[in-house]
Formats: sequence, structure tokens, C-alpha cells
Amino acid sequence: MICERTFPLNTENNKLQLVRLGIDTKNEFIIFMHAACFVCKSEGFEASTRILVTANNESIIATLDIVHSDILKPFQASLSENAWERLGVKEGDFVTLSHENPVTSLKFVRSKIHGNELNSGEFDAIISDIVAGKYSNIHLASFITACANNNLTMNEMIHLTKSMIKVGEQLHWDHPFVMDKHSVGGIPGNRTSPIVVAIVAAAGLTIPKTSSRAITSPAGTADTVETLTTIDLSIKKMREVVSKEGGCLAWGGAIGLSPADDIIIRVERSLDIDPTGQLVASVLSKKAAVGATHVVIDIPVGTTAKIRSDQDFIKLNECLNRVGKAVGLNVYVLKSDGSQPLGIGIGPALEAKDILAVLNNETHAPLDLKQKSIILAGAILELGNKALPHQGALLASQLLENGTARKKLIAICEAQGGFKEPPTANYTHAIVAPHKGSVTEIDNRSLATVAKLAGAPHDPAAGIEFFARIGTQIEKGQLLYRIHAESKGALQYALDYARSTPNIIKIHRE
Amino acid sequence: MICERTFPLNTENNKLQLVRLGIDTKNEFIIFMHAACFVCKSEGFEASTRILVTANNESIIATLDIVHSDILKPFQASLSENAWERLGVKEGDFVTLSHENPVTSLKFVRSKIHGNELNSGEFDAIISDIVAGKYSNIHLASFITACANNNLTMNEMIHLTKSMIKVGEQLHWDHPFVMDKHSVGGIPGNRTSPIVVAIVAAAGLTIPKTSSRAITSPAGTADTVETLTTIDLSIKKMREVVSKEGGCLAWGGAIGLSPADDIIIRVERSLDIDPTGQLVASVLSKKAAVGATHVVIDIPVGTTAKIRSDQDFIKLNECLNRVGKAVGLNVYVLKSDGSQPLGIGIGPALEAKDILAVLNNETHAPLDLKQKSIILAGAILELGNKALPHQGALLASQLLENGTARKKLIAICEAQGGFKEPPTANYTHAIVAPHKGSVTEIDNRSLATVAKLAGAPHDPAAGIEFFARIGTQIEKGQLLYRIHAESKGALQYALDYARSTPNIIKIHRE
Repeated sequence: MICERTFPLNTENNKLQLVRLGIDTKNEFIIFMHAACFVCKSEGFEASTRILVTANNESIIATLDIVHSDILKPFQASLSENAWERLGVKEGDFVTLSHENPVTSLKFVRSKIHGNELNSGEFDAIISDIVAGKYSNIHLASFITACANNNLTMNEMIHLTKSMIKVGEQLHWDHPFVMDKHSVGGIPGNRTSPIVVAIVAAAGLTIPKTSSRAITSPAGTADTVETLTTIDLSIKKMREVVSKEGGCLAWGGAIGLSPADDIIIRVERSLDIDPTGQLVASVLSKKAAVGATHVVIDIPVGTTAKIRSDQDFIKLNECLNRVGKAVGLNVYVLKSDGSQPLGIGIGPALEAKDILAVLNNETHAPLDLKQKSIILAGAILELGNKALPHQGALLASQLLENGTARKKLIAICEAQGGFKEPPTANYTHAIVAPHKGSVTEIDNRSLATVAKLAGAPHDPAAGIEFFARIGTQIEKGQLLYRIHAESKGALQYALDYARSTPNIIKIHRE
Repeated sequence: MICERTFPLNTENNKLQLVRLGIDTKNEFIIFMHAACFVCKSEGFEASTRILVTANNESIIATLDIVHSDILKPFQASLSENAWERLGVKEGDFVTLSHENPVTSLKFVRSKIHGNELNSGEFDAIISDIVAGKYSNIHLASFITACANNNLTMNEMIHLTKSMIKVGEQLHWDHPFVMDKHSVGGIPGNRTSPIVVAIVAAAGLTIPKTSSRAITSPAGTADTVETLTTIDLSIKKMREVVSKEGGCLAWGGAIGLSPADDIIIRVERSLDIDPTGQLVASVLSKKAAVGATHVVIDIPVGTTAKIRSDQDFIKLNECLNRVGKAVGLNVYVLKSDGSQPLGIGIGPALEAKDILAVLNNETHAPLDLKQKSIILAGAILELGNKALPHQGALLASQLLENGTARKKLIAICEAQGGFKEPPTANYTHAIVAPHKGSVTEIDNRSLATVAKLAGAPHDPAAGIEFFARIGTQIEKGQLLYRIHAESKGALQYALDYARSTPNIIKIHRE
């Protein structure tokens, strides 16, 4: 008995006909096959087997779910929506199924787990298999964990970064100075990029900025900019915007520069970690891929920021500089205050509102966000030879205050697909002070959790307005922060967490 | 707009009605909900969200797949088969859905990733959350990887082992000597347990043996015994068998002793790793849970075995002894030859046939399997005061050769549910020597891969018959091993791998 060939079509080639069940798994590629399927039987496939699926000359490795009901017939298969899209198939197409060839790069992952140093070829193999969709979530999580906790040497970070650059597209520009910036995360509301890009482009420099979505924070720059304009630009469109306006604010994930990073970040988010080696490779691979030559990197340091001590800062600074040099980037690192949120808003739309307030020179615009943007833009202007040493900040503040930067941001947004005002949430709840005193400490991580539970970044209008900076004198009942949510469920969930977590904002009784 | 309440039933409680789609995911719990579902909308759930699912006063955390077709209606939900079983639901039942509370033990996993030593309370929290089904595959893979590569201190191994004992049931017997044995894996065909249990029980000792299924090998003892009798015994049934026959050969997974281990092993299999700390905790937690007092542990050492050097052996020996002592077990470790397979068969049924040949005293019975079983059984007889020092092996060989052990095995099988003969595969292919010479080396790992690709352990009759022990003089064209498979696809796949992998059996030209 080899199999019951009740449905004789194409059995000789292990082919099944596709039916679209429309199942969105978001993560892993899944293939659905019926329990009585002749391919399962002849190939010995069981649930959770990893299977090579080929259609239209494209192949992926998918995890098998076995269906025991009549939503599929034994001669049919279905794919999760991400696999459907990746293979570019349509209903009725045939897919060819076979055992995956053992994913040879997994032996390098095991070698890393066992504490060995990997060479550049081994990282190339791992990263290209990851981008080819050959790693399950289990494999990805293991690779990321094995590389965490300072387990990568400097050479390994360089190899990893180069592998991540190689596997994606790389842009080239006809300028000796192609500027970029990056802020290491961990500080809610740290949304300087749109302001910095507007100033730097207004000064006549080239700054093809790509940003990512949130990893573990309530908003990434891409999430924030998405509330103002279109962010999923093609490379062609990005070139157009940059050649017209000098700068852009694109989502890196859409462009496919450093595609490995997009996959790795998803798993890091699930683990709520962002290890140094991956962080360095992630940041620098994107900067190199975008064709940058000079990069200013802002590292906020604070007890609840991502980088918590001067020691960690010094180490990260060194890694960024050395890996940057190895991949041809001129890196300049700035240390900033990471003790509390920047601006008022935390969450995509709320942060976008802060940005607009700063660019509009409104009186209530958050001063800290403005000042930090000026410092970063100033550093870039000096690095790009647009200002003499120590005079970059002055030029930056002029461009901001005379409205040139505002015009540039609107122009960039219009070039990307049109400018729009950020949305406002339907549900809000005020958190007030339980007693009088002065604010002595902010738990950034828990504050970010409240914003995330309220729906950020998935719900663009969700998040927090924050009014309790360190040192503020607070009366009993005074507004500390306001939670914004797009749904009642999310608001309640954020509220439950906020109420049950002590000392998110520490108020010292005086 | 909070949600479209097109289907008003039970919306106030976030309830959905179950439809059985019959999707077997094997691994993670999955919940399927429609894209237009009011619960998704009001709670802000998106694909891959982890959701708390409650029914019949039981809760699990499941990963959300969002369905965009009409296999579900917006007021319905479905569960993967494992979740369906865990919650004990039936079609038409309602499930209540809410955001999972943050899984607090994940912060201990992150702490471990960052290289910190965990205490007993932290391991308890992790292990009980794992058993409660709160960890996704990503979380499990990260925890396992963070504990690999000697990242656990001796104290951590003790904590982990105790946590794994605590979380399951623990048996107690009214005997001062409750014997057990374990062989560390890595050697194909190392299936001494059924023979050892038969001898030891025949000698009048108590040996309530539980075994696991394969982790990374072509067969675990449980897989092999399953071709001879029923292995999924309840604790009650296991007690009956042991009180009647002195011993049993049960599958540990069915009994629910050390349930954490069953979950962890599944992920280790996918990663193809078996780290020391987990190995020690896995082995000893099962021995303690089964109520053993004295345990003989066989560690094969060889270049392609799981333990590859004397140094690794010494380390593992120390870990087993110290952790054993801490959890109240008298551990005795034996080192054995791990350079080549034991017996002829590799794979569940083929190994069972070797076992029967030894017990039947057949002339072609594999001598190495017989001798090793006698040594292990002898050590247990001495440890259990049934033989004087250095006289255990003699008693063991007598019990084997006079047929008492054979009768005992049959009696145990009958007590467990009936004895049956192991099955035979439909497809076989002989691999012959390409040239004359003598066998100098066996790549156990690749040989095991061939057997696994042929279908073992999932297909019980699949595997390898092995005829090329080290030192054997081989003529050109002489049979080296024979691949057995239950399907043509699996046979072809095993064959492709065998042909493309050099030196699985190294034949030195003379």
C-alpha cells in the first residue's frame, strides 16, 4: 500500500490544487493539507513537518497543518496568506510538494549555540536562508537568543552586518555626503527623525531616511510618519522623492533593504529583547543599504532606557564605530538623556502631533523634542560640511524657527503621496496623581507597556499623552498622563495594567 | 465606532461559538477567528496576537490566526485540535476571549538570556507557565537556547530538575529499592531497556520503567516498545502492571510525569539539540517522578555519539551525580562504547526485532546488544542487593539464557494490553560497498538521518538494518546496510541523502 489514489490528478508529481482559505498567520508560512491527502501518505508528511512548496518557479518552506474536516478535499491544499503572496499564486494553481532539503545553515546556528565563533560564510548562509523563508519561528528564536548577551565578537558583528547588507538591495547616490541618523530605542516619544530630516534636507543635504516600525516600543518612526503620509515607497519612488526634495521618510520594510532584519525584528518583538549584536547589525545594515556615507546615532542612556549605563553606552558606541568603519560608514555617536519620555505624545498619531507642533513653532510645542532635534540636525549639518564646527545647532534652529523645515516636511509628505493630519482616538482616560509631591522617576518600560496595551502601534491613534516630567511639582489629583485608545477593550486593558503597576511615575511626598 | 455588532449574541462577554475545522497544528495552540469578528475589533486583536481562551473553567493561551474566508462566520471561532482537546470542548460550545495577562515568567527567560543565574522560584515560574501552555514556540526555543552551552550552573540544574518534578505527578512505591535505568542517546539501535527491565523484574526487583519517544534519533525506547505492546498506560494501569510483574515499559508522555519535558523535547527536536542542563533535568526529573530510588545511567561515548569526549563524559557524570543526590536519587553512571550502532536494527520495529532475538537466544541475535544489556542489568542487580559485587552480570546472563527474561517480557507486554509482533516495511533498498576494504569509522549522526528520512520513528517499520560494524572486512558489492520504508517517497528521500553524503560508513582500502 503506498497511497489511496482516489484523486489521480498529478499524483506522480506530488501536486495539489490550491484553494484559498484566507488564513492570515502573520508569521510562519503554513501549508494546509487534508489528512487523507495522497501526498501526505506517500511522502510520510505529518503535522508540523516542514515542506518544500514550489509554484511559479518560486519555492518556500512551509509548516504543515493537517486538516481533518471538509474545508479541504484530499487533492487540495491551501496556504497561509503570507505564503500565498510570496509565491504569487491564485486559486486553482498547482503547488508541488516535497521534503525540504535539510537546511544546512542550521548547523551553524547549533555551532553558535555551542559557543563557537562563526565566520562570514556561515553568517551569509544563515541570513540568506532566513530571507528565503527557510527558518521556522523556533529556528529564528534560537538563532537570535544564541547571538544575544554579548555572544557575538566584533568580527561576528561585522560578518552579520555585511551578510544583512548583501542579502538585500543596496542604493547608491551621486553625492559625497549622503546623511542619515538613527536613535536607539527605549525612550517613548523619541521621534526626532521627521524634524531632523526636514531641517537637514532644508539645508540642502541629501538624507534618504528609512525607518522601521516599532520593535518593542509603542511606535517606531515609520508608524508615526504613516499617520502623516504614505510610507511604503518603492525604491523608484524613493529616488524620485529624494531627488526632488533632498530627503524622504520611507518605511524600510517596504523597500526591501535589509529584508533579514524585518524577519528578525518580528521575533525579537515577541521575545521583547533587542540584543546588542543584532541591534548594531540591524541599524548599520540599513544605513549601508540605503547608501548613506555619514551617520549620526543618538543613544539615550537611562535606568529604564534600552541602554542603561555609561558602560553599556561605551560598549555600544565602540561596536557602532568599529562595525561602521568595516562596512564603509562614517559613524558619529551622540549620548542623550534617557531618563524620561521626550515630548508629550507616546504612540504613532500622538507623536506625530508633537512633531507638527515643533515644526509649526506652536507655543505649547514640547521644548525637549525641539532641542534634541536641533542638536541632532546640527551634528549632521556639521558632518555634512554645511556648518562650521559648533555652529550646526544654530543653523538648525534658524531653519526650524523660520518655517523652512516645516515647509520641507510638508513637501516631502506631498511628494510621498500627500500630507494628512494624524487621527484622534475615541476613548481616553486620565491618570491623576494620588498625592502631592514632585516627580522623581519614570518607569519608561511600564509606561510603554501601558501605551502598547492601549493599542499602539497597531491602532495609530492609541497611546499616551504624558505631562509628568521629572522634577514637576504635582498637586493631588493633577493629570499625570492620559491614555488614548481606539477600542473600549484596549482602554480597559491598559487601565487595568496602569492601576496594578506601582510607581510608573514616582512622586516623592514633600 | 467600537465594533459592528452584527451578531449580538454574547458580545458583552467576548464570547464566540466554536466550530470544529479539524486543523491539527501539532505544536502551538491556535485560535481561528474571522476578520470581521466583533471580538477582534473591540479587543484590537490582530493575527499572531496571543489570546487567553477560556472554556469549561480551563484556560489556555493561543496564537490568533485571522480567517478572511467563509469557513468561519464572524461570531464563530475554531481551535487547533490540540487546544480543542486541552479545553475539552465540543462543537457549539462558547469560548471566552481576552488579552492574555503578560506572562511574567518571560522576564526570567530574558534574565537568563542576559546571562544571569536564576533561582528556584524563577525556574518554578517558567516551568509552570510552560506546562500551562503559556509559552509560544518562540518563547520555548529562546528559553532552551538560553539554557544551552553550559549556561546553567549546577544549582540551576538542580532548580530546573526540581521544578520539572514538582509540576507533574510523582509516584511512590512501598519498596526500599525501586530501580531504574537510562541510556543517553546518540547511538542508533541502543535499545537495551526492554531486555534490562525483563531481566531485573525476573530477578524480583521493582523497575517501573518509563521511556520517552525519540528526541533527535530514529527511535526512542517508547517508539520501539510500541511495536510490541500498548505503551500509553494510565498511572493506575502502570501500578497494576508493576505490582503484578515487578516491572513495566510505559511511555512517560502518556503518564504525565514531567509534563514540561514533553513540551521542551518537541522544540529540542526541531532545533536538533539536546543541551546538557536540559538533558540532566529531563532524565532525572523523570526518574524522580516515577519514584525510583536507584538509577543506572549508561553514557555511550564516541566521536559521533551525543557525548563525544571523555571530558564531556566526566562533566555529565558529575552533573548527573550531584543533581541526582540533590533530588534524592542514588545514581550510578556507566560509560560505554559510542563509536557505532548497537545491534542490527535502527528504527522502532527493527530494534524490537533485535530485542526479541536476544531474549529468544536466537543464533543470529546481536551479541553487542546482548552483552551491553547484561552489563547494565548486572549493575542494577548489584545496586538492588540481588547480587554480590561483580556477580550481577553472571546472574543477568543466567536469567537471559534460561528464558526467564523472555517470559517476563512477554508477561509485561500481556499485562500492558497484549503482546504483538513488530511490523515489516513494504519498501527496502540495499546499500552496498563501493570497494573492498575494512570498516574504520561510522558516522552515527548521518546514519540516523538516513533512518529518519526513511520515516523512523513516525513510520514504525521504517529504518535501517546495519551490517558493517567497525573492523568488518568488506568485499566490493557487499551489503553495508538496508533501508526500510513504508512509502516510496520516504525511501527515495532517504536514498538521495545516503547517496549524497560521503563516508557514512568509512571503508579503508587495504
